[in-house]
Amino acid sequence: MSGRLAVVGLGPGDARWLTPEAQAALAAADALFGYAPYLARAPLRDGQRRHPSDNREEGSRAREALETAAAGASVALVSGGDPGVFAMAAAVCEQIEQGPPAWRALDMGIVPGITAMLAVAARVGAPLGHDFCALSLSDNLKPWPVIERRLDAAAQAGFVIALYNPISQGRPWQLAAAFERLRRYLPATTPVVFGRAVGRPDETISVTTLATADPADADMATLLIVGSAETRLVPRLHHAPLVYTPRAAGSATT
Amino acid sequence: MSGRLAVVGLGPGDARWLTPEAQAALAAADALFGYAPYLARAPLRDGQRRHPSDNREEGSRAREALETAAAGASVALVSGGDPGVFAMAAAVCEQIEQGPPAWRALDMGIVPGITAMLAVAARVGAPLGHDFCALSLSDNLKPWPVIERRLDAAAQAGFVIALYNPISQGRPWQLAAAFERLRRYLPATTPVVFGRAVGRPDETISVTTLATADPADADMATLLIVGSAETRLVPRLHHAPLVYTPRAAGSATT
Repeated sequence: MSGRLAVVGLGPGDARWLTPEAQAALAAADALFGYAPYLARAPLRDGQRRHPSDNREEGSRAREALETAAAGASVALVSGGDPGVFAMAAAVCEQIEQGPPAWRALDMGIVPGITAMLAVAARVGAPLGHDFCALSLSDNLKPWPVIERRLDAAAQAGFVIALYNPISQGRPWQLAAAFERLRRYLPATTPVVFGRAVGRPDETISVTTLATADPADADMATLLIVGSAETRLVPRLHHAPLVYTPRAAGSATT
Repeated sequence: MSGRLAVVGLGPGDARWLTPEAQAALAAADALFGYAPYLARAPLRDGQRRHPSDNREEGSRAREALETAAAGASVALVSGGDPGVFAMAAAVCEQIEQGPPAWRALDMGIVPGITAMLAVAARVGAPLGHDFCALSLSDNLKPWPVIERRLDAAAQAGFVIALYNPISQGRPWQLAAAFERLRRYLPATTPVVFGRAVGRPDETISVTTLATADPADADMATLLIVGSAETRLVPRLHHAPLVYTPRAAGSATT
């Protein structure tokens, strides 16, 4: 058995964020698996087989990629952003744990990528400039009270908060509930960044405040960054204001 | 004035993690500024001026880069990892806020990079597989009690914790104190990943538990990942165990 599985982070949208390691892993693969829009972003090579799948099929997609690699193929399983951040790497580990013993002998590697919060942060300044957390608002895989407890803890302790998976058709109310929760602890003026489709041609980035943040401005392609009490705006000439969190932090936390 | 400042993330160590956007920004620069070992990693081009500086001079390094750009040069200020994560982007924003008005008119952009926690996570599996936080253990710029409060909050709420700047000659006791703090809330068996010099030829990655984690195994080049109560090991054949945090999380938090 000489198969191999690479779980490859494409970064968000823009090909200029695809690392040389990821490019090489895609080029070396005989078979590529992934959510169809991500797979469409991988450069084509003759002789490669492509296996696109739907958004919500992480488990079966990981199993198919593992089966194909275990059968001897060189497989790339592509992931948007970084595979380790709310993406395919954990799904692959779960399947290896639950799967046949041969999967535990497989040559499997993770290729990191730029995750959305880093790209969105870069667009506006340095909102993640001190301690921060990354939290998925999806309650498909964890109970909502766990999310509430984490929002409370992060805001009270002064972490900047990056919100992944803020909203979807099946989860319409969670982002509004999260904003309500955060308003208990954070000033109304706390900057909130909406980064939609970052790195793609239809990218939109907007900056508002916690008081006025509107959940209707987010969709499945949006990554939000909610500042801490110390996150601030710097007005500029001819440019959008910078959003940043000073490195010397802590005095404003409760 | 046609100067420009790009704050460029090199990623950790390995040139295979240097994005095409970062490569282009380095190639386009007339003048490069940065901590000397990072600057040494940028590919050389004839006619570029290099301005290396020491580790602890973020403020003056940012000011010099801004002054040079404001004088008309195309400047790259390089940063290890991602510039927005405990690196140069916030220092630049601080200087723009405090500096002359001309700096607010400057064309300034941030080029994101792979930050160390993503690279270390990729080496061992998917330890950041659910909600996580990134916390600097340096108390140079924030009081130690703020760090303690954040460690408490993160562990109690079930975040996986990535620790940046865990230890240095001037900060010898903080990592041991952090482990002690975390042992109050997390099981003795909680996996702890030590990722040293990730992506460099002298890289070492080791996995231990919170009970046995030894601060002496970390140095300035180490990034640590402390799991949540749900982070687990998957033994493998012929490979190191996988470390991962299941996506379906929350039941084990207190």
